[in-house]
Amino acid sequence: MEFVEGIREKDTLELTELLKKQETDGEILVEGTVHSIRKMGEIAFVILRKREGLLQTVWEEGKTNISISDLKEGDCIRATGTIRREARAPHQKELRLCAVRILSSPAAPLPLAIDKWKLNTSLETKLNLRPISLRNIKERARFKIQEGVCRGFREFLYTRGFTEVHTPKIGAKGAEGGSNLFKLSYFHKPAVLEQSPQFYKQMMVGVFDRVFETGPVFRAEKHNTRRHLNEYTSLDFEMGYIDDFMDICAMETGFLQYTMELLKREYAKELKILGVNLPETRKIPTVRFSRAKELAAEKYGRKIKNPFDLEPEEEALIGQYFQEEYGADFVFVTHYPSKKRPFYAMDDPEDARFTLSFDLLFRGLEVTTGGQRIHDFHMLTEKMEKRGMSQEGMEQYLDTFKYGMPPHGGLGIGLERLTMQLLGEDNVREACLFPRDMNRLEP
Amino acid sequence: MEFVEGIREKDTLELTELLKKQETDGEILVEGTVHSIRKMGEIAFVILRKREGLLQTVWEEGKTNISISDLKEGDCIRATGTIRREARAPHQKELRLCAVRILSSPAAPLPLAIDKWKLNTSLETKLNLRPISLRNIKERARFKIQEGVCRGFREFLYTRGFTEVHTPKIGAKGAEGGSNLFKLSYFHKPAVLEQSPQFYKQMMVGVFDRVFETGPVFRAEKHNTRRHLNEYTSLDFEMGYIDDFMDICAMETGFLQYTMELLKREYAKELKILGVNLPETRKIPTVRFSRAKELAAEKYGRKIKNPFDLEPEEEALIGQYFQEEYGADFVFVTHYPSKKRPFYAMDDPEDARFTLSFDLLFRGLEVTTGGQRIHDFHMLTEKMEKRGMSQEGMEQYLDTFKYGMPPHGGLGIGLERLTMQLLGEDNVREACLFPRDMNRLEP
Repeated sequence: MEFVEGIREKDTLELTELLKKQETDGEILVEGTVHSIRKMGEIAFVILRKREGLLQTVWEEGKTNISISDLKEGDCIRATGTIRREARAPHQKELRLCAVRILSSPAAPLPLAIDKWKLNTSLETKLNLRPISLRNIKERARFKIQEGVCRGFREFLYTRGFTEVHTPKIGAKGAEGGSNLFKLSYFHKPAVLEQSPQFYKQMMVGVFDRVFETGPVFRAEKHNTRRHLNEYTSLDFEMGYIDDFMDICAMETGFLQYTMELLKREYAKELKILGVNLPETRKIPTVRFSRAKELAAEKYGRKIKNPFDLEPEEEALIGQYFQEEYGADFVFVTHYPSKKRPFYAMDDPEDARFTLSFDLLFRGLEVTTGGQRIHDFHMLTEKMEKRGMSQEGMEQYLDTFKYGMPPHGGLGIGLERLTMQLLGEDNVREACLFPRDMNRLEP
Repeated sequence: MEFVEGIREKDTLELTELLKKQETDGEILVEGTVHSIRKMGEIAFVILRKREGLLQTVWEEGKTNISISDLKEGDCIRATGTIRREARAPHQKELRLCAVRILSSPAAPLPLAIDKWKLNTSLETKLNLRPISLRNIKERARFKIQEGVCRGFREFLYTRGFTEVHTPKIGAKGAEGGSNLFKLSYFHKPAVLEQSPQFYKQMMVGVFDRVFETGPVFRAEKHNTRRHLNEYTSLDFEMGYIDDFMDICAMETGFLQYTMELLKREYAKELKILGVNLPETRKIPTVRFSRAKELAAEKYGRKIKNPFDLEPEEEALIGQYFQEEYGADFVFVTHYPSKKRPFYAMDDPEDARFTLSFDLLFRGLEVTTGGQRIHDFHMLTEKMEKRGMSQEGMEQYLDTFKYGMPPHGGLGIGLERLTMQLLGEDNVREACLFPRDMNRLEP
């Protein structure tokens, strides 16, 4: 009987390990994909792509066991060689190749020059060739940063007593209602894809007090803009026993502070590759919705068309205002109009036209929507009635409140939008591995 | 201008903090939900449910500021009081209540006796009343354990050089094909919900070498059994540069070992509440599919009906065999028949009727399917042709291989099944917050 006793230790070295080696350490073993080949006669520079970065290896006529013509870009190889200092190489080290074994070979030459520092091609082409275009070092670095953001969210919330939940994406009813729901037939019953884990995370506040989820949400919005996706990853949390919605803003600020530190510490390489300037998160200004509109209107000479709506251009100007006046990358815009918020939002007791809610703008773009929710059963059913909403299909959600719920609130953060703003990208599709929009369902 | 500078420190204490307090520390502040009330005349025991567990508080006539008749189960309260040693209380401490403020009150009495140690009700009722039944301490503890498993998966894989990815759940084509796909209309185009992130994680091996994802998958299987869900959380990883599929088994074993340690360390309270015996993960036996069938047949006098299929009863017997013969909770069953595996599975070069793949059985139930995948473009397209599969809609997946891929493999773990077996539950619905099956779409 054979047994598996845990991970197998391998002789092959990862980049960090092998860069610690010296010539005197003798032959080492390495694996990687041939990223590019530059032939120089008797020698050739063969750049290997590894998960931690690029490694310069050197093929030498008569010293390496294979002919350089046997090697091509896209080959996956296992090779032995010796490490040498070389001031002009990345990391100031290179590997002199001894024995090269080709593990696999591509069937065709690459359709994109992925070894260029910046892929010189349209977004459309990059997305069509996603499995290939992401092999470019800069392209893939974005998604390491994205990993760091998602990881930071979870790690931070674990330390603050939150429980991670997994809620269903197929449901009988959407949390926000309206027409932007994808519909499907579920064993002959009508069903929808959830627009948000809102109902479920509120139900779970009654159980765990503080919960979070990182998962996909689906919106059948007929928007084809640079900031909309029809499927995206939402970072959601919901917490009980809040004093007011500023507890939610404070928790989000804590997350941002934690995550920027995590990125600095663990993702420095990718930040450098992408030239990212991390935003200021020590002090995030807050401004009421109505006041924010006024400030932007006054400073930039814009007329307020609708006091209960915020257009993307106004968002951008508010962002600019707080950048210029306070050096702030983020700003909490609070007290959104009730009309613009779902029924479960808590109205401001001082002026019911507004809610105890907020959006977080990051460099002029909304990346979060959050706020305090109604926790009283009667208040909730009355508001539903006032909005002409039926309770049908909402029984279990309403039960949550009927049987007691603490004051609570929460938020949802668009992971791709946050990544996009962090990286200074102009299109949210640059921050999504496989975007889904009105025209794109593949790859 | 107001600024948010990070999380707000509160005076209210969490359970761990307040249990460190003594009577001499004076009044402390606490919040929680009234879980149960036991009146004893001049005093009453008011058990508070907090996220970390239960706290015994004591109402005293004339000493607490409110009448006991003002308090009811389901109330959310904020209270001050003093800590006293009390040998008979949970944690040997109780809180003598001074001032109680009711933050919110339920609109109706609870429909379930959630304060009982074990909920004495059917699975059906528990699921129908999910937001309430999960308020039971044992019920909710399961999902803390589930959190630990998912967290262990990610934490372990981060340390092994894996990158987390988020792949789309709406696609043009399913990874496994066949009839068990949920279909929907995506802006007038036919689309499906992904059965697995298989294609995407393979594409990403060419980019990051090692990737993982924890997310929902959707299977329109017409099974209504104790072990099937139509939507579940899949823990997936895929890794490049493997020597053979035993590298995958070894990585999974590493994950299990890491996770059991994490549970012991951080989830001891919940393990105790549920009386969980953690499984043995130091040495996991491996056995070939055909041999496993023979062993079970010989020992338990069962006839092998079909040498290329494994029935649930056989799985259970194989589990029993390895438990009895080797004291093993887990067993890797390897070399599954090609007919039972999707086209991308690597056939065994020594006998193409079988594949270089495995299932992991945990106490007699399949919790993982994994294996080596085909990485060669020509081998892949030939196998598709042999199976009569069209390449239509597979162009970008196939491009991944056309332009070079390392030898690789991976696996998918059913989070709910793994949780179910870990907890010794009999129905996978007990290990899913909001199960989706053929008959259940709500809550």
